[in-house]
Amino acid sequence: MSDKAFQDYYREEGSWCYGCGRRNEHGLHIKSYWLDEEQSVCRFTPQPYHMAMPGYVYGGLIASLVDCHGTGTAAAAAYRAQNRPMDSDPPLRFVTASLHVDYLEPTPLGVTLELRGRVEEIRGRRVVVAVSVLAGETLCARGRVVAVQIPERLREKIARER
Amino acid sequence: MSDKAFQDYYREEGSWCYGCGRRNEHGLHIKSYWLDEEQSVCRFTPQPYHMAMPGYVYGGLIASLVDCHGTGTAAAAAYRAQNRPMDSDPPLRFVTASLHVDYLEPTPLGVTLELRGRVEEIRGRRVVVAVSVLAGETLCARGRVVAVQIPERLREKIARER
Repeated sequence: MSDKAFQDYYREEGSWCYGCGRRNEHGLHIKSYWLDEEQSVCRFTPQPYHMAMPGYVYGGLIASLVDCHGTGTAAAAAYRAQNRPMDSDPPLRFVTASLHVDYLEPTPLGVTLELRGRVEEIRGRRVVVAVSVLAGETLCARGRVVAVQIPERLREKIARER
Repeated sequence: MSDKAFQDYYREEGSWCYGCGRRNEHGLHIKSYWLDEEQSVCRFTPQPYHMAMPGYVYGGLIASLVDCHGTGTAAAAAYRAQNRPMDSDPPLRFVTASLHVDYLEPTPLGVTLELRGRVEEIRGRRVVVAVSVLAGETLCARGRVVAVQIPERLREKIARER
């Protein structure tokens, strides 16, 4: 597992995301890595207040983790498909077109969750990532992110504005 | 529109949710109401730091709003289907079985978002709610929540533990 997370390669102007932006001081700072050739991984320990009810993690937080781990994995997979490192130009950054989460088991608070991402499809600017959310051995949720590469026009507009 | 939100009727022990619990001091305090016979409504103004990128709302927050507005609407609809007020016993409280969000347009920061909920189906303990996320006239996202009534056993366990 590399020391540097996918999100650490995001450009300065693309690092404000509440979920995974290192420059967002209020955010969750979600970090994703390759676990092996097939899977990406994100480990995250919810805060005690990230609860749905006492003892269990809030579903909206789980959706947020799936979202940012999905778009991060999409970016990493897109660089890999082009056979180039994540700090090379032009940058490839993805946004979420759709997000689906099935909540299978109540997710316990107080443990580090592990998300595993698996790329299901790369086609043009579109990457589909399946995500499993584990608490220990228990599969608590299953997610699916359809990620789309940010149009160059929008990326440049944002870079200009910062 | 009533003064009292659906979530204001949640029992004390069921009011800790990060998304919509009035007792969660770190939470979002999402509030839902009936708009008319057909639709529920939730108005929410994201914080400046709830961004995906400068100027646009974070998708994980949108998923969180859809989630809690969906389960809140499910509860209100279930009481209505039983022809009884939300402060009557036994309490009906829902959790999310699945959540889907399609992000249609970048959602602007700095405005109050309006979520509209519409009950698609009530069957046994299961309620399906379709949610539209609007910024002014623009439909920014479309969501769907499959909500399931919390088993009485789990509800009692949580009540005992608080």
